[in-house]
Amino acid sequence: MTKKVTITDLARRANVSVTTVSQILNGKDDRFSDKTVKKIHQLQKEMGYVPDFNAQSLIRRSGRTIGVLVPNINNPFFSHFLRGIESVAMENGYIPLIFGSNNNQKLESYYLFESIRRAADGMIIASAISDVSYIDNILNQNGIPYLLTDQAPVAEGDQVDVNNYHGGEILANYLIQKGHQKVAVVTDQHPTLNLKQRLAGFLDTFKSHQLSISADRIIETELTKLGGYHVTDQVLKMKSTAIFALNDELAIGLYRGIHEAGLKIPDDISIVGYDDIDLTEYVTPTLTTIHQPSFEMGASAARLILARIQDRHRAFQRVALPISLVERQSVKTLN
Amino acid sequence: MTKKVTITDLARRANVSVTTVSQILNGKDDRFSDKTVKKIHQLQKEMGYVPDFNAQSLIRRSGRTIGVLVPNINNPFFSHFLRGIESVAMENGYIPLIFGSNNNQKLESYYLFESIRRAADGMIIASAISDVSYIDNILNQNGIPYLLTDQAPVAEGDQVDVNNYHGGEILANYLIQKGHQKVAVVTDQHPTLNLKQRLAGFLDTFKSHQLSISADRIIETELTKLGGYHVTDQVLKMKSTAIFALNDELAIGLYRGIHEAGLKIPDDISIVGYDDIDLTEYVTPTLTTIHQPSFEMGASAARLILARIQDRHRAFQRVALPISLVERQSVKTLN
Repeated sequence: MTKKVTITDLARRANVSVTTVSQILNGKDDRFSDKTVKKIHQLQKEMGYVPDFNAQSLIRRSGRTIGVLVPNINNPFFSHFLRGIESVAMENGYIPLIFGSNNNQKLESYYLFESIRRAADGMIIASAISDVSYIDNILNQNGIPYLLTDQAPVAEGDQVDVNNYHGGEILANYLIQKGHQKVAVVTDQHPTLNLKQRLAGFLDTFKSHQLSISADRIIETELTKLGGYHVTDQVLKMKSTAIFALNDELAIGLYRGIHEAGLKIPDDISIVGYDDIDLTEYVTPTLTTIHQPSFEMGASAARLILARIQDRHRAFQRVALPISLVERQSVKTLN
Repeated sequence: MTKKVTITDLARRANVSVTTVSQILNGKDDRFSDKTVKKIHQLQKEMGYVPDFNAQSLIRRSGRTIGVLVPNINNPFFSHFLRGIESVAMENGYIPLIFGSNNNQKLESYYLFESIRRAADGMIIASAISDVSYIDNILNQNGIPYLLTDQAPVAEGDQVDVNNYHGGEILANYLIQKGHQKVAVVTDQHPTLNLKQRLAGFLDTFKSHQLSISADRIIETELTKLGGYHVTDQVLKMKSTAIFALNDELAIGLYRGIHEAGLKIPDDISIVGYDDIDLTEYVTPTLTTIHQPSFEMGASAARLILARIQDRHRAFQRVALPISLVERQSVKTLN
């Protein structure tokens, strides 16, 4: 039990009534002398009085909190995404309750319940949820609006769209234009919708050029640097001229494996990633990738959920954000 | 305002009293028929009823929350540190309120106040606080225990100690033994205590070998990859044989600058870092550094603050965790 400084402590020290303190701190200070107003503000500072939030929450039935579930805070994509959320939340007097689920279903449920228990006003879920309809049910029953990114919603809802299918198309066209026909793909073993769309755009584009990529050239692993590193041998055995890593973390893991195998990027093998995390400029050679506006994606998600919290009945919004190819040094021109 | 499912909703659906529901959900169910107990549990699940936390918090005056302030969640060191905190917090029914201050004093204060307002039971502060005695004052007045890592406390307190001075000594001895005498140092422009200690151990060791490093060879920058990258030219002008980067992020920034300058690590210049973040194994060449047990540091900090929350009067504890040199490929032997 904390012994938080209370409004009563403050009133006692100032030798005025609790009502006086309350009115002054709520800006209704025209009824009081300048001296009293000044004294109260000074004492508040001196005594470190902070209004009790749980009491306010209970009355408002709002914790001014947005629960945020991401798969992996160690991926720089998500740390920027979180900063975007944080920045918009703060402007609006909210705070994000940030949880990293590490793709662990038990953690996921634990955090979901904690968010509800703590009166989160809304949720942004960016991690792969094992059972979306279960979550839809429990959040709906508690009247908590939520926004799913990176996965298929159960029903229509607000949406931040970064056209993953198109991102896959761009990369495929780029590699084809550079003369690459034999390509290996490295993706998540439990891909979310965004990854599936990325891959579909990529495969469809190859197919439309009569260059189909067979299923055995698509390797699944954990969506981390280590996951990419671990499948390097498998990828190299395929004798491809290029690799499409479904995100930059995977690509950086493959870089390590390729270097350890004594091969050179892009002379011996080319590689492209996805996300444009800051690390892509720090590896050698720098990585060609698709830029996703991670900060803006977080900020947009926060704006959408806050608007939804204010008005449950507004029409569903879809925010489309642009992506673009960032050409660096990891792809060789073959022709 | 959320329309959370209430205990009254549940009681109404079950056609029993609120007291009955409350007792059953609190495990006092021996007075009731198996059928009733089963029905209540089933309805709880079906209706998605989650007990209201703010009401409980208000009674307990505890949010079962630990406020955590870190400088930069984009640094993998801190994402592992946070996972350590998270893991211990969860085991004890607490959650961490994670805030990235980005070394911004305004954000720092905002988050500090939010933690108090939300009845945090304790705080772990790992970011550089501009005014420690101010924070000590406000947290003390509100009866909130806190633990500072990486900086000097105003008074004696619980402590997680990873002997930064010794880490600096180890690196200095290693470089000297490898034949490096002309060394440049890259550090934070606003170094926290841990960085100062690291540097002191390093400089003292050089001095004790009659190889003192002059102040103009110590370059200050922002403690990020970009900060390291930006000072590369300045560092290279010094014609040193080796660089000591005060953390791995700085080192990885310098890698980029050195590569862009057309130089090779370690053939042209050697470099060592500090922290042993996962990236040190993914850059080329792999980075020699000091391993810090980041996850365990977070877990220990959480254990200490939880013990302090339980008992304000227990003797101060100091947990010492080991560090070690991880020799990789970024240092050349000169003799």
